[in-house]
Amino acid sequence: MAESIDYSGRFSADVGNFFRSPVREIFKRVKLDEIYSFAGGYPHSSTFPMEDIRELSSLVIDRYGAKAFQYGATQGVPELREALAARYSVPVDRVQISTSSQQGIDVCTRVLVDPGDVVLCSAPTYLGALQSFRSYRADVRSLDFNAPDVEQRLEAIVSGGGRIKFCYLIPDFQNPSGETMDLDSRRRLVDLARRFDFLIVEDSPYRELRYEGESVPTIYGLAPERTIHLGSFSKIFAPGFRLGWIIADPALLDSIYVCKQSLDLCPPVFDQYLAAEFLSSGRLDANLVRSKELYRSKRDHLLSLLERYMPEGVSWTRPEGGLFLFLTLPEGFDSVAFYDRALDAGVAYVAGSFFYADGSGRNTMRLNFSFLATERMEEGIRILSKLLGEELERL
Amino acid sequence: MAESIDYSGRFSADVGNFFRSPVREIFKRVKLDEIYSFAGGYPHSSTFPMEDIRELSSLVIDRYGAKAFQYGATQGVPELREALAARYSVPVDRVQISTSSQQGIDVCTRVLVDPGDVVLCSAPTYLGALQSFRSYRADVRSLDFNAPDVEQRLEAIVSGGGRIKFCYLIPDFQNPSGETMDLDSRRRLVDLARRFDFLIVEDSPYRELRYEGESVPTIYGLAPERTIHLGSFSKIFAPGFRLGWIIADPALLDSIYVCKQSLDLCPPVFDQYLAAEFLSSGRLDANLVRSKELYRSKRDHLLSLLERYMPEGVSWTRPEGGLFLFLTLPEGFDSVAFYDRALDAGVAYVAGSFFYADGSGRNTMRLNFSFLATERMEEGIRILSKLLGEELERL
Repeated sequence: MAESIDYSGRFSADVGNFFRSPVREIFKRVKLDEIYSFAGGYPHSSTFPMEDIRELSSLVIDRYGAKAFQYGATQGVPELREALAARYSVPVDRVQISTSSQQGIDVCTRVLVDPGDVVLCSAPTYLGALQSFRSYRADVRSLDFNAPDVEQRLEAIVSGGGRIKFCYLIPDFQNPSGETMDLDSRRRLVDLARRFDFLIVEDSPYRELRYEGESVPTIYGLAPERTIHLGSFSKIFAPGFRLGWIIADPALLDSIYVCKQSLDLCPPVFDQYLAAEFLSSGRLDANLVRSKELYRSKRDHLLSLLERYMPEGVSWTRPEGGLFLFLTLPEGFDSVAFYDRALDAGVAYVAGSFFYADGSGRNTMRLNFSFLATERMEEGIRILSKLLGEELERL
Repeated sequence: MAESIDYSGRFSADVGNFFRSPVREIFKRVKLDEIYSFAGGYPHSSTFPMEDIRELSSLVIDRYGAKAFQYGATQGVPELREALAARYSVPVDRVQISTSSQQGIDVCTRVLVDPGDVVLCSAPTYLGALQSFRSYRADVRSLDFNAPDVEQRLEAIVSGGGRIKFCYLIPDFQNPSGETMDLDSRRRLVDLARRFDFLIVEDSPYRELRYEGESVPTIYGLAPERTIHLGSFSKIFAPGFRLGWIIADPALLDSIYVCKQSLDLCPPVFDQYLAAEFLSSGRLDANLVRSKELYRSKRDHLLSLLERYMPEGVSWTRPEGGLFLFLTLPEGFDSVAFYDRALDAGVAYVAGSFFYADGSGRNTMRLNFSFLATERMEEGIRILSKLLGEELERL
């Protein structure tokens, strides 16, 4: 083999802003089934409709033949776009299939954001979105959209020369907090977006997973002219298919369409037909009923375990849906430093500060309740609570 | 619905350099099976191993269970990376799975190229690569690497302040020309890359489709320290799976790995297991024997039809493999202007100038011989040749 060369001076400026997902790094260190993992956002294996997929694989081959294996349209196959348009009552020309909803976030940033442009988000927010925004050298600003001074803060950004491109939000069962924006907050946000003329990226991977309470209208429904709605099959079918969708104004989708030609030409075709048949046959809804039942009971179980085992001074959110809840510990506790001790004892979580654009929130942690087997949750929480109790006594 | 808003001022600077694929636009205008299409780079439907896929879908479900539907590693599933590492005799830490080889091109450009950086390519070259290079505002320079003045031209670029990042090539059965670089040319290129210290992106989607002659060593094999080798399952399995691979130095792959986290987290997982089993079971090689036999006979048929029907003054390449050959017509002929007449008569091709970074090559056209049914090729070439004859008489 020839000598190796130095790559360090060869990279684009963007690369300097890449950062690796601490969540994905955890998964490289441990085998998920050997620990008590409250870390990832993995759906529970039992929600994957494997027998449906076995049948649908044959059905897709019989029904669509070679078309299911050939290059497909960049926008996605018509059958899947039409099924989604019908499900969410939007015109089909507003539906673009994405190769994962992560790609939806990434491609929106690509077509909208130049280095230095402002992207607004809440604190905490989804780590993968922060990775993408940073990778395009966006100026990421955390904002509490319900704060009384939000207008002044937006005015300060604009008068300081900031070009606000969009605001990124997960209004339903947020990752990581588990919280849901109420209708008033959504209306206020839309009002601000119209006043300050920025777009809204509404990331909705968990919206279909509501376990109690009333569904709140989407932000897209309130402001379809300026909202980009991102959906995902990862939590309602299977993440292994890497399929999501983008609902937005055709003027914006046209740029995304041209961009996607050079990104990957088209989304996976066989997988799209599987998803289209899974959806239009009614199997998706049937599977969703079972998944929601499972997740509701897992959420309830985790909440009761926290109630029972957690030391005083620890509080947590009570999500109405989704996959996560968020713990807040006393000031001074450091969930990043504590992480290795927990992992040594066999328990994984994600340190909350990874979800803050400014690295704050060291006294928080995200717990996932979808992945770990229900019967293993108690032992995991017992271990974590005991360690936390010892740590808090030392503070 | 709320009023619409103006999107025109909202896009990033990159968007101004996006251009749509004229090939994909053709496919929006016509139904491929209703015309004589020599246009796309579509594999023939009969090469898709649908009965294998039916069996393998069940086998993957039985063998890998939920793992095949869960989130996967960003680098790709180990089974597929290992199978490719074994097939191409490279260490597994040099193999990254990409969500299509188009993504391979795109992500290399993303991590290496800043606006204004020079990317070298041959003229003509693959259109989808030009789309990607332009989308990052690269300074794309066409170069004949066999020209006697190639060194002076490279020196002129460098002394003019050009930062040459990489050279992009399809050394085997090039798209669109069908030509293959001989070993001497590859060695000279490597020598130039070492002297002028640029990387080489070796795009090899057709390499396994050789119908005659001896295989030439890969450029990667000659210069593994500075070559990024891109492979694809599109032509040897099925394009609908959107799976490719990147073989490169781990220092470069590490940046691509972090980039890919924010691009789409991981490649499609179920599809990767299908590909891994297709490969390691020996079915891929068996299918490849049949595909090559089919394509060889289709190439031979097209060559004999061109010989028989084409008017004087038209010449073409004689590819030893791949999916394309390239026609050169007399100076003054304009294959872009001629295109609508051909399509009205039911024949589609791709105008050669689309493959030239500078828009030259108006007197060329690309013909694909993999897609159209063998028994329909004669009528298609007869029509095209007659029209061309009439047009050339008018010149």
